[in-house]
Amino acid sequence: MDETFITLEYKDDTLWLIDQRLLPVSFEIFICKDFRDVEFAIRDMVVRGAPAIGAAAAYGVLLAAKEYASDYETDHGKFASRMEEACRFLNESRPTAVNLAWAIDRMKQTLSKEVWKDSADMLKVLKREADAIRSEDIAVNKRMAKIGVSVIPRGATILTHCNAGALATAGWGTALGVIKQAFYDGKDIFVYADETRPRFQGARLTAWELVQAGIPAKLIPDSAAATLIRDGKVDLVMLGGDRVAANGDVANKLGTFALSVICKEYGVPFYSVVPVSTIDFSIESGEQIPIEERDPKEVTHPGGVQVAPEGIEVYNPSFDVTPHQNITGIITELGIIRPPFNENIEKIRKGIALGN
Amino acid sequence: MDETFITLEYKDDTLWLIDQRLLPVSFEIFICKDFRDVEFAIRDMVVRGAPAIGAAAAYGVLLAAKEYASDYETDHGKFASRMEEACRFLNESRPTAVNLAWAIDRMKQTLSKEVWKDSADMLKVLKREADAIRSEDIAVNKRMAKIGVSVIPRGATILTHCNAGALATAGWGTALGVIKQAFYDGKDIFVYADETRPRFQGARLTAWELVQAGIPAKLIPDSAAATLIRDGKVDLVMLGGDRVAANGDVANKLGTFALSVICKEYGVPFYSVVPVSTIDFSIESGEQIPIEERDPKEVTHPGGVQVAPEGIEVYNPSFDVTPHQNITGIITELGIIRPPFNENIEKIRKGIALGN
Repeated sequence: MDETFITLEYKDDTLWLIDQRLLPVSFEIFICKDFRDVEFAIRDMVVRGAPAIGAAAAYGVLLAAKEYASDYETDHGKFASRMEEACRFLNESRPTAVNLAWAIDRMKQTLSKEVWKDSADMLKVLKREADAIRSEDIAVNKRMAKIGVSVIPRGATILTHCNAGALATAGWGTALGVIKQAFYDGKDIFVYADETRPRFQGARLTAWELVQAGIPAKLIPDSAAATLIRDGKVDLVMLGGDRVAANGDVANKLGTFALSVICKEYGVPFYSVVPVSTIDFSIESGEQIPIEERDPKEVTHPGGVQVAPEGIEVYNPSFDVTPHQNITGIITELGIIRPPFNENIEKIRKGIALGN
Repeated sequence: MDETFITLEYKDDTLWLIDQRLLPVSFEIFICKDFRDVEFAIRDMVVRGAPAIGAAAAYGVLLAAKEYASDYETDHGKFASRMEEACRFLNESRPTAVNLAWAIDRMKQTLSKEVWKDSADMLKVLKREADAIRSEDIAVNKRMAKIGVSVIPRGATILTHCNAGALATAGWGTALGVIKQAFYDGKDIFVYADETRPRFQGARLTAWELVQAGIPAKLIPDSAAATLIRDGKVDLVMLGGDRVAANGDVANKLGTFALSVICKEYGVPFYSVVPVSTIDFSIESGEQIPIEERDPKEVTHPGGVQVAPEGIEVYNPSFDVTPHQNITGIITELGIIRPPFNENIEKIRKGIALGN
């Protein structure tokens, strides 16, 4: 995998997505013709990963504007209310990752400026904004990779969870982007990838990206991580994030919190890698982050095959919250946020760069 | 499920096993015609669970003696060496659970006594011994249930991992036996069952037993346990064990160790329920317990469906070791072993009953 790897792309007035539900067994493109297709793609996890769903939603707003463009010409109020509705619809596709709201808000701000003479011009401006969200994400990932690589020692074994790679972003990746950077820098690293139940993003996506990049790695059941960490076989844990609160608590894929407790107990550094757009400055702590519950079938029918009896109830939360006390650092494009997290996140909010 | 539930049974000179690979989707009987079938059934996990594989292996020794009975009449030395070989073959089917060696040793001791006049008589004595191992296991489980139920408060929510139920034993169950007892005692309990990757024994077997018994329960991905424990939604963890060292370290299904760390961090009681036959008095600590590694396909192809890319390496240990420091108590038929574990396990070795 190199920099040209494309998770999502706007082509022929449609949004093209790699269908991540089918990887690594087959590689297919899912084409979104309108914003409803984009909402479905996010909800059903054709595309997933906080930055990737933000960028996808931005194109969703563009597709809505394209659909309602004739209203723009004839009935401004109708256009505005339809766009409002489409944005709300897109925003409700998944609840936990804040990048979704962040990207939609950015598109709405652009919409509100009305710096155009007609609807055709409007669509050009909106397209430019969505493209900017996408390309900035790739640039931000690369900046994070350069910053984050400083915490990876030569010869390190790194454990990662879920997929925080090119597929979770517009391209390159957050946590896996830093890991790739270390590999390309010749740091002689080794990666353990948690399979990440229930949807196997570690097995399906991270393992695939690691194989593509040629990075030495092993796939493990999630439960195998604890003993590896205890026995000194993991030098650091590095993973992504779906929403960071102002106090540094991180919501991320289910399983992250347990890893953080094990790391703290055995003194292993624990890093989350997120763009600033994943920080939700409006909430004080992780307790306020909504945690999505998904279909019981993800648990009872892994890969479509029944493993659980009829009649059993299921609890299937998609994320958990890791308290900032368990986190060594949060790597962003403005530097590495370390304790005291609330103070340093406040600096980030003001756009002040931190050190490494 | 009631007391008549039958995991394994010797019928028509063959060993009948519930094929646990197929539950809960289909209920089929796997018939072992000779000791090689028994070895396969243990290795391929047609039957699993430390006490159950012990009992199955005992019948395996009986089937070997039946096969070699004519040698017994004609060439005593040949018979002895063939039996030795068959016992070794059975013993090597799986490395971690000590009940396997314990049951085979017990059959070998019976063999060495030679308290019979001919081979037909020998087979009767061996059959009696294997039946005793089986029925004693059920009786022991019921004794443990009566003892262990004292640690379950009224209205408790209990989290369990893997399957330590009737299916893991000759009948009734170890950890799930205690849990069932609490339910039948009207203690108004609720159970969270970890699905238990990679082989889903929690989803396939424990959830099935819970549904059969009508015990209120939810199935969860393994990674969901940590947040439930932290948030006070679990009153205690209760699970089985595959080998207990003389210092109280417990080898059990992969994922047990991580649960123990989370429980210790958040002050939640953590119990292992095992018959005395699961204690390996000959080893000082859990570090000496061999940990089985199983087929990578269990990870890459859950339920037979590919989720990981070609070319990814896999690390798939079947068990992990929980240090005694993380364990509140080990429930046995001779009472509950609490710290200091080494002293109290020494008492158990001498057959001294402990309190509750």
